[in-house]
Amino acid sequence: MAVRKIKLTIQYDGFSYHGWQFQRGLKTIQAAINEAMEGLFGFAVTIRGASRTDAGVSALGQEAVIRVDTPVPTRNIAKALTARLPKDIAVTEAVDVDPEFDLASALCKQYRYTICADPLRPVMDIKHCWHYPYKLDANAMDKAAKLIIGKKDFKSFASAADKRQDTVRTIFRCSVTEKDLWIFIEIEGNAFLYNMVRNIVGTLIEVGRKRWQPEEITEIIDKKSRTAAGPIAPAGGLTLMWIRY
Amino acid sequence: MAVRKIKLTIQYDGFSYHGWQFQRGLKTIQAAINEAMEGLFGFAVTIRGASRTDAGVSALGQEAVIRVDTPVPTRNIAKALTARLPKDIAVTEAVDVDPEFDLASALCKQYRYTICADPLRPVMDIKHCWHYPYKLDANAMDKAAKLIIGKKDFKSFASAADKRQDTVRTIFRCSVTEKDLWIFIEIEGNAFLYNMVRNIVGTLIEVGRKRWQPEEITEIIDKKSRTAAGPIAPAGGLTLMWIRY
Repeated sequence: MAVRKIKLTIQYDGFSYHGWQFQRGLKTIQAAINEAMEGLFGFAVTIRGASRTDAGVSALGQEAVIRVDTPVPTRNIAKALTARLPKDIAVTEAVDVDPEFDLASALCKQYRYTICADPLRPVMDIKHCWHYPYKLDANAMDKAAKLIIGKKDFKSFASAADKRQDTVRTIFRCSVTEKDLWIFIEIEGNAFLYNMVRNIVGTLIEVGRKRWQPEEITEIIDKKSRTAAGPIAPAGGLTLMWIRY
Repeated sequence: MAVRKIKLTIQYDGFSYHGWQFQRGLKTIQAAINEAMEGLFGFAVTIRGASRTDAGVSALGQEAVIRVDTPVPTRNIAKALTARLPKDIAVTEAVDVDPEFDLASALCKQYRYTICADPLRPVMDIKHCWHYPYKLDANAMDKAAKLIIGKKDFKSFASAADKRQDTVRTIFRCSVTEKDLWIFIEIEGNAFLYNMVRNIVGTLIEVGRKRWQPEEITEIIDKKSRTAAGPIAPAGGLTLMWIRY
């Protein structure tokens, strides 16, 4: 046997967790997976995630890598880990990857944000949406969304806590669709700044409620200042859908 | 002003609650509504629910009555209470009813039970379904469901904890439908015994996995013994949909 590098695809309902990243004494996705791995393999294994999702953010396609020397065949690992995980976390796939495989080399990531504009509170889905019980113009929001597409400096949508110097990212797709009183924002890009999706959503909401015109998005981006954009959208509505390598 | 009798329609995600009924020191739906009412009216108000839903059971149409002497108009009460309630509870309607109105006089109640037969764990919906990751024959389940319809002695489906002498109830409709790998059981009746819906679901599952033939349901009912039926289905999959007066 030898050490294998294995990529895991992971799904979770983030509502009850303090995010992906391990934090001493707090319930996190990483800590839950660490515990399941220690049970399965008999020893501690380090896991690295592609995206450090925040507290309350969910994922249907988080990617992570482990390096492990175990008799457990890779094809059995997803099912065996899922059986040891809490009900709101699942490993859907485990595949061997090259030793050179780099989690940071993603070609594209998709996030989806869910808004409920129903005046009635959606009690069954409230943990997975932003309940915004006012009239929103989804067409105007979609027009604004289209202006986000491209290779641009997205400093206006970066959290002040994001200390990275390079704030240029490429957005391939950004669309706003409406079904009944639900609004879905899908955004795909090569990489994202800290809180970038939630800051974009908070800005699109301002367009939806007619505070800003769709065209003003371009000015907001040009200002390269967080204060130019809208407020951050709540975490619960955000889901990491998939990461493509 | 005078004391008004008001009927409230209530929705809740039961996952985080120890059921409807007040229990000292535990988080219950009734306790949450009591607290919201005390905040709104300025004094404690007694509320009675039509259905004592169990821990983990949800409702989209629970009915309840209060008697209150307040300057708050009835038409404002639903919104005002909802604003004071936790996010997973909402009052959707408040209407004045006759002093003689009797919560127990329901003509029909509908429950819905959700089963997920997907081999993959549905992390986002896991709290609101029974994840049963095996092949189920929904047609056989529906055939069995049809044999439950009618005025019958349902003692076989009553929890041993149900001490009521009269175990005859009338089921108007019972259907099993399938969509992708999800199975929905809808059941309507004039009244239900304690745990009756969950015991029926646990029995229909046995038919779905071919342990029993659909026709055996009639024998199970005839035996008038809880041990003749299948195991109880978990609470999370159950939702009280509506109550008609």
